[in-house]
Amino acid sequence: MGLMAVDQTQLLSKMATGNGHGEASPYFDGWKAYDENPFHPTQNPNGVIQMGLAENQLTVDLVEDWILGNPEASICTPEGINDFRAIANFQDYHGLPEFRNAVAKFMARTRGNRVTFDPDRVVMSGGATGAHEVTAFCLADPGDAFLVPIPYYPGFDRDLRWRTGVQLVPVMCEGSNDFKLTREALEDAYEKAKEDNIRVKGLLITNPSNPLGTIMDRKTLRTVVSFINEKRIHLVCDEIYSATVFSQPSFVSIAEILEEETDIECDRNLIHIVYSLSKDMGFPGFRVGIIYSYNDAVVHCARKMSSFGLVSTQTQYLLASMLSDDEFVEKFLAESAKRLAQRYRVFTGGLANVGIKCLQSNAGLFVWMDLRHLLKKPTFESEMELWRVIIHEVKINVSPGSSFHCTEPGWFRVCHANMDDMAVQVALQRIRAFVLQNKEVMVSRNKPCWHSSKLRLSLGPRRFDDIMMSPHSPIPQSPLSYKDTLIPE
Amino acid sequence: MGLMAVDQTQLLSKMATGNGHGEASPYFDGWKAYDENPFHPTQNPNGVIQMGLAENQLTVDLVEDWILGNPEASICTPEGINDFRAIANFQDYHGLPEFRNAVAKFMARTRGNRVTFDPDRVVMSGGATGAHEVTAFCLADPGDAFLVPIPYYPGFDRDLRWRTGVQLVPVMCEGSNDFKLTREALEDAYEKAKEDNIRVKGLLITNPSNPLGTIMDRKTLRTVVSFINEKRIHLVCDEIYSATVFSQPSFVSIAEILEEETDIECDRNLIHIVYSLSKDMGFPGFRVGIIYSYNDAVVHCARKMSSFGLVSTQTQYLLASMLSDDEFVEKFLAESAKRLAQRYRVFTGGLANVGIKCLQSNAGLFVWMDLRHLLKKPTFESEMELWRVIIHEVKINVSPGSSFHCTEPGWFRVCHANMDDMAVQVALQRIRAFVLQNKEVMVSRNKPCWHSSKLRLSLGPRRFDDIMMSPHSPIPQSPLSYKDTLIPE
Repeated sequence: MGLMAVDQTQLLSKMATGNGHGEASPYFDGWKAYDENPFHPTQNPNGVIQMGLAENQLTVDLVEDWILGNPEASICTPEGINDFRAIANFQDYHGLPEFRNAVAKFMARTRGNRVTFDPDRVVMSGGATGAHEVTAFCLADPGDAFLVPIPYYPGFDRDLRWRTGVQLVPVMCEGSNDFKLTREALEDAYEKAKEDNIRVKGLLITNPSNPLGTIMDRKTLRTVVSFINEKRIHLVCDEIYSATVFSQPSFVSIAEILEEETDIECDRNLIHIVYSLSKDMGFPGFRVGIIYSYNDAVVHCARKMSSFGLVSTQTQYLLASMLSDDEFVEKFLAESAKRLAQRYRVFTGGLANVGIKCLQSNAGLFVWMDLRHLLKKPTFESEMELWRVIIHEVKINVSPGSSFHCTEPGWFRVCHANMDDMAVQVALQRIRAFVLQNKEVMVSRNKPCWHSSKLRLSLGPRRFDDIMMSPHSPIPQSPLSYKDTLIPE
Repeated sequence: MGLMAVDQTQLLSKMATGNGHGEASPYFDGWKAYDENPFHPTQNPNGVIQMGLAENQLTVDLVEDWILGNPEASICTPEGINDFRAIANFQDYHGLPEFRNAVAKFMARTRGNRVTFDPDRVVMSGGATGAHEVTAFCLADPGDAFLVPIPYYPGFDRDLRWRTGVQLVPVMCEGSNDFKLTREALEDAYEKAKEDNIRVKGLLITNPSNPLGTIMDRKTLRTVVSFINEKRIHLVCDEIYSATVFSQPSFVSIAEILEEETDIECDRNLIHIVYSLSKDMGFPGFRVGIIYSYNDAVVHCARKMSSFGLVSTQTQYLLASMLSDDEFVEKFLAESAKRLAQRYRVFTGGLANVGIKCLQSNAGLFVWMDLRHLLKKPTFESEMELWRVIIHEVKINVSPGSSFHCTEPGWFRVCHANMDDMAVQVALQRIRAFVLQNKEVMVSRNKPCWHSSKLRLSLGPRRFDDIMMSPHSPIPQSPLSYKDTLIPE
């Protein structure tokens, strides 16, 4: 329990400053800059473009069409009102059977129907946020740790750690190796934790990766499965971006490894999938998280815990109908991949034209942009300095690699699926102008020239709090830090 | 942290037997008996009538009418589809401003508009279940305790304790005093906890009471406020049944004490309200829980934690519109009170005709039925024996007082708002027949005569698990108990 004591002290100081990442927190500044001056094509054409938000808005028109064509799928239409009473009153934590069936079917379909999922293993939760916390509560005790390859989604620091007391131990993945996960890195992290007397209870992988947009190849997944089996630790596979894979090679789910790679030893009791409809379908507001575990005890336990974050039956009812419409799902997935591929091509092509490369990827709602050549020095201070210029001068909100615990400065995650084609073009124009201007001066001075002298930050603690703990934001903060100060003596 | 160690051992044995309350768990048996043989007026007229479920189905027709008359309130109609994109993508943990405004307004209206609520203090959660857990996480550390007057809703044992490590310390309320809360009982519980080296962090009251259906009078509320102020502990007021008060005297919210009873000292930082739309509106499936705290730090912390159990924006959108329709809300509340009063009158009148009394009450979706005179002996064994007869022979599922930690055997909670008038009449007929049959034999033998020899229970552990942890069921069970057994060596 030493961990919690440490955390309390750390967090107490965080609470006092109102800022866990110091003044330079990119989430703080970036979101504030965007919120205060959001881009609009006609009303605010010089505003900040939000490219820090992994939202999928490319296919919502297909969903709207389906809804208008299927009024019986809503309990709020003349065609569906007869089910209102039963649905509003339904409170079984198993969820509507139709909902679980539809989710299981959809999960199989997004994995090319190469595997099947058992509806009885589908457990609901409040988004992937809730799914990760429930999984951590089920598998680990306070002080226990999960290994997590870096860079990783910063929300894990909150979701897995905050109320559970679980720790995250980074697994190093290097840019020189395209950030691929290796057996050696896994062993190193595991041994390091052991030396520090930390009990490792599991490995958490995100496939497709956020922030990289890459997928794990079959060989890496085999390595992962062998590793966790040898160490007798759990494997949590976050596959919330599985339907965002937009080009070859195909996505390989951990489920496929279990079913197909029968030559390697794999205890199914160790395998758990976290899924969600926030990214693949573009419904983050609906808070649909899924835990799919191959371990009966975890299914039981997670289902009981789901009482704290069930999906509204109104939403279950709608999605049960939508996701079991084969024709719609088929069309949606094909069109979504096509539009994401097109967006990726346009955006990375535009960046390439001004000499900016991205990590080669084929999934996700973002690219992992390499701006190492624009850093004054290869340090995180320089990365932060460049980031400030991008947000305040180029007027694009992107996320620096340091937010994702990346160990190599100069990488940025840029989201491109939360806007229309025109906004993408404006963003590309701005980047082009910035790079060209920068190049001219670089030629004369032989280093990047941008200044951030104009920047002044004056941000109240309330505003920071508001932003930093939204579902897509990264910084954990514990109530434990100030419980004893809640009551003035 | 000694508590958690103890809990683990306790819960390990619970997990092994699959049953925390022993074979006689009324929730286990009762729900199973109902599920296997549910009453239906024509298809199964001899089935079990479900009177163990505090559901409000008396006014759903009003809601249905409103929905059909307001198609723009749904994002799934031609009138509302234009908002689908923004709503499906909305993921701010503050919730839709319109939703918070509507909830604050509704909370004021259900308290006669004698007080107002600040929308900025309205925090969402996954039902009252989630609201209670978040509040406990915010206010207490593992091992800390809340005082809770008995009898209380058995779900608290799960919601407040399970993942937080918080303890509940009972405050004795006696039948001889109509189960009223006294200063003396509060002091006794507090002192007892102190003697046991338990740190008391708060007092949890439920007003109106579940299971009693009574409301707290102003004097008792003043006592409560004085007590927690003197002890410098928090007060959590569960007011989820506030709109079910159907006759005089009026409901008095803790908010009114704060605003009106200015002669007593009260630190607002100590006061927190838990609310929900599951009971007052009859929407348990929509999972709308609310934390309303007068403490800024708790509001901030709870809002961050709400990320684990946000309300679906589809549901927020609908309710924002519905609850801000003054005319509808006015009509709904008046009609709801009228129908609840009528149901209470009919049901308690029917019971009185066969000599069964209930605790005098004017709120809730249930009555607290006094069957002490039908016990063979004044013991909980006899209570359980009688309960088995009621469920298996009278074929009504009710909840024995022991489930609610009542200290006096012979009381039963009977829900009456989850059925139509006809089902109530069938239930009354069955009770009448049972009592009369019983009386005849009692006269000859001078004691209750019923037998339970015909009863045979054979219930698999899976089924039990399913039932006992549903949102309305009582028994907590921790994953901690078997974390280390999840991985076979």
